[in-house]
Amino acid sequence: MPTPPDILRAASAELVVTDLERSRWFYTETLGLVVTAADDDALYLRGMEEYTHHSLVLRRGEQPALARLSYRVRTPADLDAAEAYFGALGLPTRRVPAGTTLGIGEAVRVLDPLGFPMELFHDVTHVPRLTQRYDLYHGVEPARLDHFNVMTPDIAAGHRFYSDLGFRCSETIEDESTLYAAWLARKSTVHDIALTGGAGPRLHHIAFFTPEARNVLHLCDVLGSLGNQAHIERGPGRHGVSNAFYVYLRDPDGHRVEIYTTDYYTGDPDNPTLRWDVRDERRRDFWGHAVVESWYREASTVLDLDGRPQQLLERAEPHEIDVVVGADGFTAARESLRQ
Amino acid sequence: MPTPPDILRAASAELVVTDLERSRWFYTETLGLVVTAADDDALYLRGMEEYTHHSLVLRRGEQPALARLSYRVRTPADLDAAEAYFGALGLPTRRVPAGTTLGIGEAVRVLDPLGFPMELFHDVTHVPRLTQRYDLYHGVEPARLDHFNVMTPDIAAGHRFYSDLGFRCSETIEDESTLYAAWLARKSTVHDIALTGGAGPRLHHIAFFTPEARNVLHLCDVLGSLGNQAHIERGPGRHGVSNAFYVYLRDPDGHRVEIYTTDYYTGDPDNPTLRWDVRDERRRDFWGHAVVESWYREASTVLDLDGRPQQLLERAEPHEIDVVVGADGFTAARESLRQ
Amino acid sequence: MPTPPDILRAASAELVVTDLERSRWFYTETLGLVVTAADDDALYLRGMEEYTHHSLVLRRGEQPALARLSYRVRTPADLDAAEAYFGALGLPTRRVPAGTTLGIGEAVRVLDPLGFPMELFHDVTHVPRLTQRYDLYHGVEPARLDHFNVMTPDIAAGHRFYSDLGFRCSETIEDESTLYAAWLARKSTVHDIALTGGAGPRLHHIAFFTPEARNVLHLCDVLGSLGNQAHIERGPGRHGVSNAFYVYLRDPDGHRVEIYTTDYYTGDPDNPTLRWDVRDERRRDFWGHAVVESWYREASTVLDLDGRPQQLLERAEPHEIDVVVGADGFTAARESLRQ
Amino acid sequence: MPTPPDILRAASAELVVTDLERSRWFYTETLGLVVTAADDDALYLRGMEEYTHHSLVLRRGEQPALARLSYRVRTPADLDAAEAYFGALGLPTRRVPAGTTLGIGEAVRVLDPLGFPMELFHDVTHVPRLTQRYDLYHGVEPARLDHFNVMTPDIAAGHRFYSDLGFRCSETIEDESTLYAAWLARKSTVHDIALTGGAGPRLHHIAFFTPEARNVLHLCDVLGSLGNQAHIERGPGRHGVSNAFYVYLRDPDGHRVEIYTTDYYTGDPDNPTLRWDVRDERRRDFWGHAVVESWYREASTVLDLDGRPQQLLERAEPHEIDVVVGADGFTAARESLRQ
Repeated sequence: MPTPPDILRAASAELVVTDLERSRWFYTETLGLVVTAADDDALYLRGMEEYTHHSLVLRRGEQPALARLSYRVRTPADLDAAEAYFGALGLPTRRVPAGTTLGIGEAVRVLDPLGFPMELFHDVTHVPRLTQRYDLYHGVEPARLDHFNVMTPDIAAGHRFYSDLGFRCSETIEDESTLYAAWLARKSTVHDIALTGGAGPRLHHIAFFTPEARNVLHLCDVLGSLGNQAHIERGPGRHGVSNAFYVYLRDPDGHRVEIYTTDYYTGDPDNPTLRWDVRDERRRDFWGHAVVESWYREASTVLDLDGRPQQLLERAEPHEIDVVVGADGFTAARESLRQ
Repeated sequence: MPTPPDILRAASAELVVTDLERSRWFYTETLGLVVTAADDDALYLRGMEEYTHHSLVLRRGEQPALARLSYRVRTPADLDAAEAYFGALGLPTRRVPAGTTLGIGEAVRVLDPLGFPMELFHDVTHVPRLTQRYDLYHGVEPARLDHFNVMTPDIAAGHRFYSDLGFRCSETIEDESTLYAAWLARKSTVHDIALTGGAGPRLHHIAFFTPEARNVLHLCDVLGSLGNQAHIERGPGRHGVSNAFYVYLRDPDGHRVEIYTTDYYTGDPDNPTLRWDVRDERRRDFWGHAVVESWYREASTVLDLDGRPQQLLERAEPHEIDVVVGADGFTAARESLRQ
Repeated sequence: MPTPPDILRAASAELVVTDLERSRWFYTETLGLVVTAADDDALYLRGMEEYTHHSLVLRRGEQPALARLSYRVRTPADLDAAEAYFGALGLPTRRVPAGTTLGIGEAVRVLDPLGFPMELFHDVTHVPRLTQRYDLYHGVEPARLDHFNVMTPDIAAGHRFYSDLGFRCSETIEDESTLYAAWLARKSTVHDIALTGGAGPRLHHIAFFTPEARNVLHLCDVLGSLGNQAHIERGPGRHGVSNAFYVYLRDPDGHRVEIYTTDYYTGDPDNPTLRWDVRDERRRDFWGHAVVESWYREASTVLDLDGRPQQLLERAEPHEIDVVVGADGFTAARESLRQ
Repeated sequence: MPTPPDILRAASAELVVTDLERSRWFYTETLGLVVTAADDDALYLRGMEEYTHHSLVLRRGEQPALARLSYRVRTPADLDAAEAYFGALGLPTRRVPAGTTLGIGEAVRVLDPLGFPMELFHDVTHVPRLTQRYDLYHGVEPARLDHFNVMTPDIAAGHRFYSDLGFRCSETIEDESTLYAAWLARKSTVHDIALTGGAGPRLHHIAFFTPEARNVLHLCDVLGSLGNQAHIERGPGRHGVSNAFYVYLRDPDGHRVEIYTTDYYTGDPDNPTLRWDVRDERRRDFWGHAVVESWYREASTVLDLDGRPQQLLERAEPHEIDVVVGADGFTAARESLRQ
């Protein structure tokens, strides 16, 4: 096998949205992302700390969908490495010229074995890093894109694909026989990509990093003030997995966005993998709160390299939500508390 | 009618608990209250800022219950005023000598018209205020008792009783025909007492004030670390009513304790009453999250002046939880978001 | 002596500023106060939680000055009580009709014995309380006016005047022979008015309350981003006195504004007075940092009832800053640390 | 030249302290580091998130000093690479067997060209990561060692040495002719090592990362409560360089420790270097506060590979503190504010 490309990190997602104005309100006025560029068909957004052109593209379309997950590679030569590597895997790849996406240099696109449209690029337009423009901070004060989370039927297969690509596995949810979810990273955080078991390929969520828990609380307060609290799907809370303080929002098209804080350093090669038992109610919420069903069931459609919706494959193994109901120690524990 | 006594504030609650050691762990090691005094049968606890002897008594007993809600009055003469006032209302009153409760001077006890054992006192032993002993802070860093919340069938009657006693009504939950809940204060905060509609008399919760939201998050993290997350019943979240950031815990006997922050100033005589429509999903949680059913249904037994459990009266008017199911705009709003 | 008027709280200050546009930038865009009303000559501002018309008036004038410190009284009849009380003290008083200050009803003005123009009013126009309009929050998210702090040569005399008016003394700075500063309250916080020893009458500062320490940090970050860090005079830090987390700013005219958080409950009549030794370096900054000299030396001119600058009386007793230099244990303690 | 070793990150410092019990109090009870191991002569400490054996060794000795700065390398083979690389530079190197420092495998020690005793290791004993043991959190809740900061006369020479070793330069302080300070990183943060201009080799400080600004404030509050505020040398405040929220402490021997939060991601190879003008008063404190002189002047003695104190070389170029006095816009700006 050829050497895999040297991926730096999750760098950008492109979402298809049906009402660009409504999405602009949600991502810029409410979340607080900065507009790097905009035209009639698309918005290019970034966090306060990002000096690369954008980390989110919102493109106008008929049906909400994920168009692409983009990663940055270390050198221009990693594009050749990528073509060779994915070609050897028999995956469909395409080389697209600089500017195919505004601000992004030449890139390699591939439909990964899980069915996700993946893009690798190195060259990117630099824009001002706004970290110390506190006068421009608002919303959740998003610093940067943190990670992608995708739904896929076969977690073990996904784990293998990303491990071969050089991702380290930081955490899992599992039991004696089944892998329910896995978190994998190239950069020195808990993840660049997480795999959630379910019918796929679907996009579960993208996540932006914010410096402190207070930012998450403030965002929820603002949504309540505006009567837009229905955008809050789950949380705020503390994750067991990753230890992050989080909230999950649904954008105007139903795309799920996580706001994510704290995390921990995972950059040493022997960083231990933390394996959560699927029966530990703290794995998804460290405070033991039940996860709302929509969070397990709903996810965004994914497009192929030609922009057509991908067909779903069902999960063959047990679903986490089904295993947890009944097995969950939460209710039992709480009952015993009282008598 | 005689002039009512001049009540300063909610000052102390006495709870009957079945396992004093387990309760000590919960209230001191976990919540972080300070032990002023302890003997084989009782613990006397206070918050970091309290220089009056205690704000919570935990007394060993056979069955969990509320023994007493105590208020401080402005002068010793207010005890006479209390006897005259409650006597004129035909309520059973008792004068108990100093030291009947450790640290508390002479007091007047009365069974209020809602069936709650109420106590008024002025004299109290001073103890060190620990506000600036940050080296002793732990748990949720509780500053002081903030308020009581009681379940009673007839909110309008309760509202009348407390208003006559000089409490100002800061907020309500209501609709065109029904009062579901009311918040009333003597001190300059949102409440010293809240009335929640339901079978009563029962104690819904007592609440301690902590300076910042971060304290609430940290407490939940600690409970998760210890595998004691079942003590977290609801939240953390932002209240619509009161605007406070909150979490509800259940103690080892199932007594509910709220940790409460921020609040607002209500001390002017024309402070406006904020009336929440029962159909506004933000009234109980400003972020629109559903309230867990146990929070509406469960509450602590209340003792009479002789220590016998009070019989319950059912609520004749509609229950908030029943009105909200269906009428709640939450699901509708979220659905509309997606298609 | 007649009974003093029943003062509720410090309610509003009127400052003379030389450049209304620059002041508007400072108080609304930077601090985040809300504009209730504005005309060519004045701005009427309030905090997010205030439903009374304003807590700060900025009036255009030739020279920066304090025009007035206003307190709210419990009833309209307290205006008559005020006239009688201050008249009996031989102080010059004036009754001014409703609307003399926009939004404020009939009022009594008096030149207090310390030389400060004091105003008492009851009636006031109600405006929307914006506590839960988090979408409008910005700057330091000021909730409400908290207190005034004035410089006056004779602290004992000032203490007597305010105590006679029914203020409780919460804290002092003193030594065996001298009172250097005192904090006195009508509402249930540490103070409505603080007295700082020095040539007077001068206004040391006015203070706004914000819910959490993070708000103070954010404000400083914004000032740094804009290159306006010179507005930050002292702090952020923790006070010994009051235990508040604070920062002191200087507005475009040099008027000092404190942003103030946390505080503690002082509403019981026997609330203990906390007496700080002037030699305890933690009294002004609990972390032991030296106070910048400008903070001790500089303060705003005060106008009399006719709008003429008041002449200054020097302090006869020792100045805190002089006593502290040398006596301060700080350097010594730090040296001994390294020996 | 041979290929340099692949350094992962700053991993551990060894400090000589004169009173191990007093140091234990400071680093464990006050700061909140965890004791991995202890014997009569040394303490091995780590942050809550660290699964490698320790990040700080305190070793009993006659005179306070820095004994060693240790970095972790990616593979065991990097030790050979290190020997070859440093040997080719003509630097004295030593290979020490596993266990020379408790918990650390075989290592290479070298006296770097700036005169600092540097150590590289790969193998290390794993210990429990305590990230989610919130019940054990106290003090400043330190997550992990973040960086070293050293004083050295020739910043350009230091910059060259570390750049050749593969460090990226994230920020500098400079003017047209002089480099005053530089920040360089291997991991994806602002720095693993910072160079401060001054007589050297001396250790300026070591820094621990804590998740949120509130942790820093709490630590200062605790130090004030204990009357130990003299340990607080500078801050809390916001850095211009690095954007971190910080405080500098002095340990019982005068060793300087920084507590450090937030930071930003620097892991892309084209991460821009942020160059601060030495005349920008916000470079060291974003809020414009003057830096206390001790912070510029004082630093810890450094030992050579045989444990003997290194002689100091004076700085030939201008000192930042001298350039800043007078050139600093702060006083001017503040004066102009008041005209």
